Amino acid sequence: MNYQIIDGGVTAPKGFQAASAAAKIKKNGQKDMALLYSCTPCKAAGTFTTNIVKAAPVKWDHELVRQQPHAQAVVCNSGVANACTGQEGMNACRETAREAGKLLNIPETSVLVASTGVIGQQIPIEQIKEGLPLLVKELSDSREAATQAAQAIMTTDTVKKEAAVSFSLEGTPVHIGGMCKGSGMIHPNMCTMLSFLTTDANISKELLQKALSQTVADTYNMVSVDGDTSTNDTVLLLANGLAGNPEITEENQNYQDFLEALRYVNETLAKSIAADGEGCTALLETKIIGASQKSQARTLAKSIISSNLTKAAIYGHDANWGRILCAMGYSGAEFDPEKVDLFIESAAGKLQLMKDGTAAAYSEDVATVILSEKTVTITADLKMGSQQATAWGCDLTHEYININADYRS
Amino acid sequence: MNYQIIDGGVTAPKGFQAASAAAKIKKNGQKDMALLYSCTPCKAAGTFTTNIVKAAPVKWDHELVRQQPHAQAVVCNSGVANACTGQEGMNACRETAREAGKLLNIPETSVLVASTGVIGQQIPIEQIKEGLPLLVKELSDSREAATQAAQAIMTTDTVKKEAAVSFSLEGTPVHIGGMCKGSGMIHPNMCTMLSFLTTDANISKELLQKALSQTVADTYNMVSVDGDTSTNDTVLLLANGLAGNPEITEENQNYQDFLEALRYVNETLAKSIAADGEGCTALLETKIIGASQKSQARTLAKSIISSNLTKAAIYGHDANWGRILCAMGYSGAEFDPEKVDLFIESAAGKLQLMKDGTAAAYSEDVATVILSEKTVTITADLKMGSQQATAWGCDLTHEYININADYRS
Repeated sequence: MNYQIIDGGVTAPKGFQAASAAAKIKKNGQKDMALLYSCTPCKAAGTFTTNIVKAAPVKWDHELVRQQPHAQAVVCNSGVANACTGQEGMNACRETAREAGKLLNIPETSVLVASTGVIGQQIPIEQIKEGLPLLVKELSDSREAATQAAQAIMTTDTVKKEAAVSFSLEGTPVHIGGMCKGSGMIHPNMCTMLSFLTTDANISKELLQKALSQTVADTYNMVSVDGDTSTNDTVLLLANGLAGNPEITEENQNYQDFLEALRYVNETLAKSIAADGEGCTALLETKIIGASQKSQARTLAKSIISSNLTKAAIYGHDANWGRILCAMGYSGAEFDPEKVDLFIESAAGKLQLMKDGTAAAYSEDVATVILSEKTVTITADLKMGSQQATAWGCDLTHEYININADYRS
Repeated sequence: MNYQIIDGGVTAPKGFQAASAAAKIKKNGQKDMALLYSCTPCKAAGTFTTNIVKAAPVKWDHELVRQQPHAQAVVCNSGVANACTGQEGMNACRETAREAGKLLNIPETSVLVASTGVIGQQIPIEQIKEGLPLLVKELSDSREAATQAAQAIMTTDTVKKEAAVSFSLEGTPVHIGGMCKGSGMIHPNMCTMLSFLTTDANISKELLQKALSQTVADTYNMVSVDGDTSTNDTVLLLANGLAGNPEITEENQNYQDFLEALRYVNETLAKSIAADGEGCTALLETKIIGASQKSQARTLAKSIISSNLTKAAIYGHDANWGRILCAMGYSGAEFDPEKVDLFIESAAGKLQLMKDGTAAAYSEDVATVILSEKTVTITADLKMGSQQATAWGCDLTHEYININADYRS
């Protein structure tokens, strides 16, 4: 481990500031806008939803990240997703970026935007425009400003989600910070949810994007709360180079160190989304080991984590392992069911449920004790090779139904 | 419509008998075994789960349907699925068939078997063997015997599921009857759940299988309760030829009439499974119209019907149409989101929610009234062509969680 975990969020790296405001987009009067700003232009990388119904801000950001050399700010609102809003929705993105650019004295093409909330409603652009000056006035590089921004982007989230690390590149201290939100409509593909990452590392735009894409595949893309891939999934990573390390331009040891630190931040944020899944009482981790291919391991781990029946059984602390093997069986990945060993593990202990595809002799009472912890790991050994993958999700509960039967009211 | 809907089940066609018994496989003492028998050998057709984890009876039946010219009986138990049970599970199938064969005086290779219930437990073969003589003694071609058999195969089902039709082939009256069970772990692929169909039609084995496969694609395969494809899904169709019509050996008008009648029975049974989805309060029907390809329409209809967020919104009588378009967007099927029109319809009226991909001007109150009925239809018009498909499912409720958090207790 070449990095240190530090207390911090998006303002942990040098030169990044954050702000939050209540712009009356949310009905309950809570904070609903956040601004992330770097005092110097940044290289930007992004990954976006693969849903063919893409929200307007996803289209806006995708263009900017691809075509512009720099970005310097991100404006995010919660409450309204700005998805399925046609040309009016695209106009709202441009107007938001233009107004923010004026206030920050940067080009509108340096302003990324993001939205999360109800699909199909138009963004209340007047309220956004009233919120922007408040945000700019509040900008600060303090720890508190980062936390408040992480809170402002929440929808059904119950806790704010932040992570930060520091590490050294040839003696120069470098930082990565991040915040994200996500609790429902979580089943990312290619990328995920809203996650904003900052770093003061000096790295080429090409390798910045490569590092982001590499780590997204094993982190956010391995999370599922409810199987629904959002129209707004966005991960943005801004690098302003202020740490002053020699620029990373090839995949050398410095790149590997950066990658390792970035993976930690992304995995931490991804797990925090799973642990805060709508209505959940437990973080569920599924590990496939002994696979012959990485893609096979990923597919199987995600199929278990996505199974309603498995998720409901975990909620009931019921070691109903047949549902786990069933979910593996319909995943589309090949394996020999009669070779599989299956284990459950938590702070309360570890237990083998299945050996060579049939029931092991185990105590249901012990299984229930293990499954009653806040974090539960299911491990399936395919005995085919040495590849592995891990996915994260949560149990399916009464509270999930409460939240989603009545989300808009 | 060339068929008449009649009150009946598997005993409606000539020469078929049914029986049921309580063999103490279910803990609550309810009936848990059913026997279906034809007084003469039948041609048999079947479709089976595509889950690579296949229950022992699925393997047994698949071999028999493929290799044997005839079948004459089906033994079904509820309570234990006989899946993930290894060689012992296969032995249980053979022993069940052998014992039933002895009692019925037919070869063991003419006895199909089926199981539904908890995965991973071994079949209590002694109880099965005690139940078989009771079943044989009870065999009857009465209406009541069919209903009792339909009740005996239920697990979490709340209502028995039967259908029957009569029609005429060149002046000869012919019948098709069926019963099925299914309420959870319902997301069939290639075939589905447990469904047993009988007919006195005289038809070649090849065309019998073809007719079954053709109708399964648009009926059982278009149902989803929870996205979990079972290890035990089985549809069996037995034809004893006792109606005496000239044998159907080519795809002529007689074949088309048979196909139409069979499709009605299968669609009725499939819809009855969706309407009895675990914990559900409404039957949800999703129609894709204006598609350019049938496969595209099927994929989109199934993606909506499988979306937890859409299902929870229907439970809350909330016209959250963004979730519907979102589920279409991640389905993998191509379409233009900015062309889509979306409607909801029920006994209370019809309402357009979306026009050309953005919100239509509609009353949320009217929408709530429409969504409060027991059967709700969502229609999406892609405006790309003339193909269409329909899928059936249900809402996602608190009661689904109750049932599945605690299924085995």
